[in-house]
Amino acid sequence: MSIDWQARYAGRVRTDNGPTLGTLLGSNQTPGTISLAGGFPAAEHFPLQAIRDGLDAVLSSDPSGALQYGPTEGYPPLRDFLAHRMSNAGVNATAEEVLVTTGSQQGLDLMARLLIDPGTPVAVEDPTYAGGLQAFDGCQASYLLVPIDQDGLRVDLLETILAGNGPKPSFIYALPNFQNPTGTTLSLERRHRLLEISYRYRIPILEDDPYGELRYEGEALPSIKSMDTEGNVIYLGTFSKILVPGLRLGWVVANEAVIQQMARIKQGVDLHTDSLSQRLAYHVSRDGWLEKQVETLIPVYRERRDVMLRALESYMPAGTSWTRPQGGLFVWAQLPGSVDTAAMLPDALEARVAYVPGIAFHPGEDRTNCMRLNFSCMAPDVIREGVRRLGAVAARWAAVKGEEELVAAPLAEPA
Amino acid sequence: MSIDWQARYAGRVRTDNGPTLGTLLGSNQTPGTISLAGGFPAAEHFPLQAIRDGLDAVLSSDPSGALQYGPTEGYPPLRDFLAHRMSNAGVNATAEEVLVTTGSQQGLDLMARLLIDPGTPVAVEDPTYAGGLQAFDGCQASYLLVPIDQDGLRVDLLETILAGNGPKPSFIYALPNFQNPTGTTLSLERRHRLLEISYRYRIPILEDDPYGELRYEGEALPSIKSMDTEGNVIYLGTFSKILVPGLRLGWVVANEAVIQQMARIKQGVDLHTDSLSQRLAYHVSRDGWLEKQVETLIPVYRERRDVMLRALESYMPAGTSWTRPQGGLFVWAQLPGSVDTAAMLPDALEARVAYVPGIAFHPGEDRTNCMRLNFSCMAPDVIREGVRRLGAVAARWAAVKGEEELVAAPLAEPA
Repeated sequence: MSIDWQARYAGRVRTDNGPTLGTLLGSNQTPGTISLAGGFPAAEHFPLQAIRDGLDAVLSSDPSGALQYGPTEGYPPLRDFLAHRMSNAGVNATAEEVLVTTGSQQGLDLMARLLIDPGTPVAVEDPTYAGGLQAFDGCQASYLLVPIDQDGLRVDLLETILAGNGPKPSFIYALPNFQNPTGTTLSLERRHRLLEISYRYRIPILEDDPYGELRYEGEALPSIKSMDTEGNVIYLGTFSKILVPGLRLGWVVANEAVIQQMARIKQGVDLHTDSLSQRLAYHVSRDGWLEKQVETLIPVYRERRDVMLRALESYMPAGTSWTRPQGGLFVWAQLPGSVDTAAMLPDALEARVAYVPGIAFHPGEDRTNCMRLNFSCMAPDVIREGVRRLGAVAARWAAVKGEEELVAAPLAEPA
Repeated sequence: MSIDWQARYAGRVRTDNGPTLGTLLGSNQTPGTISLAGGFPAAEHFPLQAIRDGLDAVLSSDPSGALQYGPTEGYPPLRDFLAHRMSNAGVNATAEEVLVTTGSQQGLDLMARLLIDPGTPVAVEDPTYAGGLQAFDGCQASYLLVPIDQDGLRVDLLETILAGNGPKPSFIYALPNFQNPTGTTLSLERRHRLLEISYRYRIPILEDDPYGELRYEGEALPSIKSMDTEGNVIYLGTFSKILVPGLRLGWVVANEAVIQQMARIKQGVDLHTDSLSQRLAYHVSRDGWLEKQVETLIPVYRERRDVMLRALESYMPAGTSWTRPQGGLFVWAQLPGSVDTAAMLPDALEARVAYVPGIAFHPGEDRTNCMRLNFSCMAPDVIREGVRRLGAVAARWAAVKGEEELVAAPLAEPA
């Protein structure tokens, strides 16, 4: 009489995909655990007064509109604002080329639904953002894995793959700025070359840029979208890291026909994004406020990054390597030898420090000795103490594993 | 060099599905048009002060939490509140059996992703909610169409279909209370029988209940979920009609394993629902406030329904029939003869009145002489004037078409 649900689930629902990150991390954390695992922005710098004032203004000027159903494509003044803001960053976009999404995670999902047929590959950086893989998995994607090095995606290796006889990807997923999880940035020369590849093979690029404005050193590089004269690039932006993440607000920039098709899909998915939050974000962000907020955040995050990098020097065992990101929220560390960071996690949690094992960012199974470390949401002292705890655990595991065969490959090399 | 996007779209993206409702209605509306087309609640009864106070309380007590990332399953106190509230309505649910969704439209989408393999049928009321069809279309569902009459879904005909040799549906989609679009309510006897069918064939029921609390006459009937002892029913609720729709807040009630699997899917779709809106809804709704709000809304909507029903009497041409809903937001009207309500729409817009042609609610092509009329979002005088305009247009079309063959079938009979 009752239903065997497992047997009823659709093919796209993977029922054997093991424990989620939440399961790994969620319930085991004792009080006092320092989490280097999250991707949370610094809550103490949330602009509370601006948000209070914005809500007041929005609810005073047009309360009915702010609480009523709204258009699927987004609140028109917000679309217009985002189009203009993209223009400032070198992207020529009209409001009709902008779709407001329920976080940029929804942009990933809409892209997957738009372009991925079951079994067709997506070309992804290896490693890449776990939430991207989750969105693409939902449409039963397969993957072409393209290694990255200190200059980001190995465009030369992508070219080799595309020149082969295998199936061509439905799109190329790229995080050019301060990539999640590695923190690496795609060089200008590779950006040009990636776009050339997109033109030559007529393959769309999905440019995911959640951290682009959070640059702590070096020159800003133009987005791939800003160089694109053919409309091949679909760009994802988000308010999560420059305003607050809880409002779940992102946006897509693409040519108008693609935006219309995505809006059609979005209508069946959630009708539209929260009206109040869209108006709030519009009200708070306009008139140059966002630029000032970014200026406030940069020195805060720069210091935290520097503290983390110094703490890694001080506390990690010999043979550990890590990236030195010029922006964003994450450092990627690689432990010596064959230390399995997923297997090590319970020990780390016991020592009251959490991180994300590298395996979460790989569609494959290789390179298990990596981890992602977040530096954005803790005070410098806490970061230092977290890395100290982590270093102690890692040293024990490295000592045990040190006598086994070395399998670590440096970030620069394909596995 | 540039991409042929049409050729790249995935199979699930229907590229030939004609003009959307938005296209039909959106751009052609001249100022002064009375729209009976929307499903909007009455904005003048949005509880603005309660929302202002709620935002203030939420941002005073835990601003960081209200603006930060949150759990995919939903804000824990809100899940707990909803579980308790369901218990009041006869459903025994724990917080773990509740998933907060980005509007109940997302509940429909998650259900589709969870259970629909491409080509497998869903059993739906004919006609049914257009947004449900859109969500199911997104997973390439096919349909088993079950006619409805004044007592809702013809469960006897569903039984005949299931007893046949055809493929069994992945689930049965039912709107038992004041159905969208027809306004009909499933009788108690049929609710029991529908559940028996679910048990006998082990087919899940998706019970979509956006309007259940908005009953203007007659006895409230128990939800199918409240009668379900086997966990076969997945229930969808929403804040859209009892609080405000713009916050995009709904919920799913199902057994814990199903909720966990849906949460896993939701994580790849939008990570989680707006944190601020969830806390706001929790703060506003608790302590019996929602019940009071519903008491405020009922006489308002009852009057508007009555005005619409009387206006239909006064103004519609002979041979028009319509439903008399006991609650909800909609009346379903059927014009005489072979009047095509989609073809008639431009004339109606010219006369400055809008409605939704029946074709929007049918996965098939039949019964083109119906329309959905909304009475919730206009003052009584406006409703009366809107129906007057509609009646004048309909009378002209009925006169022209009156001499053609009569093809209208009353609501009670299968087409």
